[in-house]
Amino acid sequence: MADILHRVGIKSSLAEVYRALTTREGLAGWWTNNTQGESKVGGVIRFRFSADGAELGFFDMKVLELQPPKRVLWQVVDGPKEWIGTRVSWELKQESDLVVILFKHQDWKEPVEFMHHCSTKWAIYLMSLKSLMETGKGNPNPNDIRIHIKD
Amino acid sequence: MADILHRVGIKSSLAEVYRALTTREGLAGWWTNNTQGESKVGGVIRFRFSADGAELGFFDMKVLELQPPKRVLWQVVDGPKEWIGTRVSWELKQESDLVVILFKHQDWKEPVEFMHHCSTKWAIYLMSLKSLMETGKGNPNPNDIRIHIKD
Repeated sequence: MADILHRVGIKSSLAEVYRALTTREGLAGWWTNNTQGESKVGGVIRFRFSADGAELGFFDMKVLELQPPKRVLWQVVDGPKEWIGTRVSWELKQESDLVVILFKHQDWKEPVEFMHHCSTKWAIYLMSLKSLMETGKGNPNPNDIRIHIKD
Repeated sequence: MADILHRVGIKSSLAEVYRALTTREGLAGWWTNNTQGESKVGGVIRFRFSADGAELGFFDMKVLELQPPKRVLWQVVDGPKEWIGTRVSWELKQESDLVVILFKHQDWKEPVEFMHHCSTKWAIYLMSLKSLMETGKGNPNPNDIRIHIKD
């Protein structure tokens, strides 16, 4: 098993960052405009991605845990085959005026090339979340920063 | 052991990206302005980082392998204790008009919080390398994009 790890510090409050991770509007503000579903334990949130008008891919996340305002845990129930069964966890903590996010996308079966890609892209989206919190404007798909051709 | 993985695609040539990883001028253009030493097998390259005029930290990398224009392998011989002994590898391949970099910072003993930080920061520096290659301008330290307070 292999994990993607990231950390960012955001000038914001725990409540605001938690809201950006647990509401449709919040998630649509930094990850993908096309976010559907409800963030409740046992519910499924559906994330759809596109580039230049064409669908790129999707992830369906089952919400396993919600511990406001400190922890969120999802499990991937549909999407790319390498993602299915993996889990995405968000740990939030306040340090002076920063909210520190410890992010893990864990339980990849193999460190395939696609995992390298997703690791970099998660960093880009975490910076989008930071930007949303600090400036009011994120860069969610389809206006995300590209790290490869269309992705 | 735990590894940091990343991938980016850069509109450039293998020779140019390889040069940015194996010359003092190239490395200073995307990672840190304060780069010293010589990129030759067995040599040590010294990277120094600062923020707001104060030293932040340093890494000394021994060059273990150079396979132009496709592979570079370093080993950390001095720096933060969590980094010492870890290895940083760069695999380059051409895919149509893109140079794809597969990056690994491998052999971390434990997935400590600092590893989360470094994973995100490596993504930022890979985007700086991409920017240097594609626009002529990177964002090396001390002008790097911050993901935490000063770092």
